[in-house]
Amino acid sequence: MSFFDQLKFNADGLIPTIIQEQSTGRVLMMAWMNRASLEKTIETGKTHFWSRSRQKFWRKGETSGHTQTVKGIAFDCDGDVLLIQVDQIGPACHEGYKSCFYRSVEEKGESFKVTEPPLQTP
Amino acid sequence: MSFFDQLKFNADGLIPTIIQEQSTGRVLMMAWMNRASLEKTIETGKTHFWSRSRQKFWRKGETSGHTQTVKGIAFDCDGDVLLIQVDQIGPACHEGYKSCFYRSVEEKGESFKVTEPPLQTP
Repeated sequence: MSFFDQLKFNADGLIPTIIQEQSTGRVLMMAWMNRASLEKTIETGKTHFWSRSRQKFWRKGETSGHTQTVKGIAFDCDGDVLLIQVDQIGPACHEGYKSCFYRSVEEKGESFKVTEPPLQTP
Repeated sequence: MSFFDQLKFNADGLIPTIIQEQSTGRVLMMAWMNRASLEKTIETGKTHFWSRSRQKFWRKGETSGHTQTVKGIAFDCDGDVLLIQVDQIGPACHEGYKSCFYRSVEEKGESFKVTEPPLQTP
């Protein structure tokens, strides 16, 4: 059975996709895929997403060079979330941080802090 | 500045939340929070979510005992995804698996396999 038959895309035809660095286990980002971007990801071995804000298909790193090479693709029990293991070149975050999750909550939500330096300026 | 000011809940008042086991780096699940469940999570140190299918506020493990103790809360550059580090008791998945991501894609999407045994039968 195709794994596509296991997936549930939302009303907009999208599925949230968690990107994790295989070598470190670090969660790098979450982005959205439609069926075409997932098929392209599988076909090419490089992550492709659907930008909701730009309503545009894009290959991660197409302008920055910060591509993601796919090492594994898992999906959850409900079939409505993907988890993709990657090798990441450079920062995953468009703000220059390794991970988009570079800020953490402090003091019961009263404040937050940046937990790492950027790898480069955006 | 409160970290709540950094967050963007979607049109339904929800934000996707990735749950990662702190000790192993394993991504366990993704679920949705509304502001009330996030506040309750911060206040109690145990994860609380919003069930979209049941339209109900729930504490993870309230019936199964498989609770998640919060070790850290991060949020992404766009403020529209949360990443919570936890200590997980028992399986995170309602199907009895440690992680909801217990199936992986094979053969270019033609098939998939279960990658681990369940910790217990559901």
